Amino acid sequence: ELRFDPKEHQHLRYNPLRDTWVLVSAHRMKRPWSGQVEKEEEDRVPQHDPNNPLCPGNTRANGEVNPDYNNTYVFENDFPALQPDAPDPGFNQHPLFQSKAARGVCKVMCFHPWSDVTLPLMTLPDIIKVIDKWAELMVDLGSTYPWVQIFENKGAMMGCSNPHPHCQVWASNFLPNEATLSDRCQREYLKTHGEPLLLQYAKMEAERQERVVVQNADWLAVVPYWATWPFQTLLLPRRHVQRLTNLTAQEREGLASIMKRLLTKYDNLFQISFPYSMGWHGAPTGPYLKEDQFHWQLHAHYYPPLLRSASVRKFMVGYEMLAQEQRDLTPEQVIHLGNSITATYATTDYQ
Amino acid sequence: ELRFDPKEHQHLRYNPLRDTWVLVSAHRMKRPWSGQVEKEEEDRVPQHDPNNPLCPGNTRANGEVNPDYNNTYVFENDFPALQPDAPDPGFNQHPLFQSKAARGVCKVMCFHPWSDVTLPLMTLPDIIKVIDKWAELMVDLGSTYPWVQIFENKGAMMGCSNPHPHCQVWASNFLPNEATLSDRCQREYLKTHGEPLLLQYAKMEAERQERVVVQNADWLAVVPYWATWPFQTLLLPRRHVQRLTNLTAQEREGLASIMKRLLTKYDNLFQISFPYSMGWHGAPTGPYLKEDQFHWQLHAHYYPPLLRSASVRKFMVGYEMLAQEQRDLTPEQVIHLGNSITATYATTDYQ
Ligand SMILES: O=P(O)(O)O[C@H]1O[C@H](CO)[C@@H](O)[C@H](O)[C@H]1O
Ligand SMILES: O=P(O)(O)O[C@H]1O[C@H](CO)[C@@H](O)[C@H](O)[C@H]1O
Repeated sequence: ELRFDPKEHQHLRYNPLRDTWVLVSAHRMKRPWSGQVEKEEEDRVPQHDPNNPLCPGNTRANGEVNPDYNNTYVFENDFPALQPDAPDPGFNQHPLFQSKAARGVCKVMCFHPWSDVTLPLMTLPDIIKVIDKWAELMVDLGSTYPWVQIFENKGAMMGCSNPHPHCQVWASNFLPNEATLSDRCQREYLKTHGEPLLLQYAKMEAERQERVVVQNADWLAVVPYWATWPFQTLLLPRRHVQRLTNLTAQEREGLASIMKRLLTKYDNLFQISFPYSMGWHGAPTGPYLKEDQFHWQLHAHYYPPLLRSASVRKFMVGYEMLAQEQRDLTPEQVIHLGNSITATYATTDYQ
Repeated sequence: ELRFDPKEHQHLRYNPLRDTWVLVSAHRMKRPWSGQVEKEEEDRVPQHDPNNPLCPGNTRANGEVNPDYNNTYVFENDFPALQPDAPDPGFNQHPLFQSKAARGVCKVMCFHPWSDVTLPLMTLPDIIKVIDKWAELMVDLGSTYPWVQIFENKGAMMGCSNPHPHCQVWASNFLPNEATLSDRCQREYLKTHGEPLLLQYAKMEAERQERVVVQNADWLAVVPYWATWPFQTLLLPRRHVQRLTNLTAQEREGLASIMKRLLTKYDNLFQISFPYSMGWHGAPTGPYLKEDQFHWQLHAHYYPPLLRSASVRKFMVGYEMLAQEQRDLTPEQVIHLGNSITATYATTDYQ
């Protein structure tokens, strides 16, 4: 019988953080592509645009004027998906028509006063200011809200409607689906195996070195064994850290450095400002601050849409939406691709 | 206190088919959009293109020549994600690095010999031929494979790389994630409530008439109470039917008619050939044919990406990928939108 070769033979891989499987069909990269191509990069963004509501000194939709900020700047989203005071839909509902109250706040956080930079182009001290502000928001909003989702949509392809470097922070009075699922999976793993899932995973990936993209003393970025998006990565601390707020000053420095290296690699891969959606997952907050959350390990997910080049993306469509996620190359193949390209095109050699 | 108004106040709705929640924030439609716009419709597609591998009489990538087919035509996908003979990755794996064998077949099914038609532009007898062929493939592939996923990616926006009207059929030796989840939810609902979930749901929607898009004696298409995509619909038989293969001749006629009406409404909404991914879910097959599947009700999901116009889509990105799906208008609002637009622009008044 044929010997199994992951680079040649389709197989399923298990995602222990979501309790799902991904179909890995490496040989699919061979098929020609004649479908939709994405627009190539925009014209150069000006450092300051008087009409951009995210720039310092400009007026926003609600008439408020932004201060002349020097590093980060946080304000309330002018068109929030979550507001603090929505009334309750009420009780006694039929099981097929169930609704629940949703309350929260949506904030926007600018990373830098200039529109023409991105995180990988910022200095380490400026990236550390972003991390400190993230932690500060987690403390503020997390004091009452059970879940505070920090996320960045980068690039037009990811629905980002403003080129100014920024992320969003949506805090809610409920645990979102993905948080509930991740919480359950990590809790069960600890119970069965006696160690937090992602702590054990980081150790094993650090030993194996098959899927590591970048690493330093405190952090590890890997293409997870169960990656769904072609160039998906998972950013993990080496120490057991439950929340962003628990990071030491040294770990924040290390995080700034590894983020800069990871995102530079991304940019160099296809030589564009690499689009992605990313976000942080850590132990829930608010009422959960008082509970044992030992099973949780802080981590960030990066989900970039591109597959073959700056203009050809992976489409998660029919089969993926209706049956199961599918990828066209193995996570290990991605690493080789990334390495060779970085060696050639890296603009700066960080740390 | 404020009285709850779903059109004004964000809330969560429960999806009983997936055991997840969707965040409904109707007031978000008010925000301006300055992000990515999609390419407007392509140039007119020729009825026969000598270079299109899906047209009758043409040669495909593997050298095979298509017959001069008159209605549907099925062939093996030349770049399949699933092949029948992949070897097993083996046993004794670490819980964090689990893989499994994946075997199957991927077929492509052309709906019609002409490239310039779509299902809503086809005649009822020709649509019935598509339905009959679907059922035939379910019998053939379902005799051994536990899951046969029929799906259509329509439009460049949904990763469709060929304008010729066609769908795909991927059969696998495993139950995909979505199938497993839907099976569990329907099974538990029957156990708790004594009636198949979607049978009860169709009855209640037929009574309420708040979310019905089109209906006839045997079928119902609704924007489900828990819809995630703005114009998502769920197509349901009124009778308890577990699989496509169980549809009577009359139900197939009714299905052809309701599909034509639903898809015409879609096309008329923004006056373009409406992009979507759609697919059928029914009771599992292969070894499951011998088991009780009373909890299952056949249904089709339509997931269209557009939100505001022919060129502005909904982006399921940062918050959606990392936390929870979110929609910008209520399912009930969609119905009103659809009705008024159809009344004005519908080209044909079907049945
Ligand atoms: O139609 P194709 O070219 O096979 O491929 C399309 O549908 C597949 C199944 O949903 C996806 O995996 C691909 O990303 C998409 O481009
Ligand atoms: O950045 P915006 O304009 O708030 O919006 C973007 O991110 C949101 C959260 O992921 C999505 O719901 C929107 O569809 C997307 O366009």
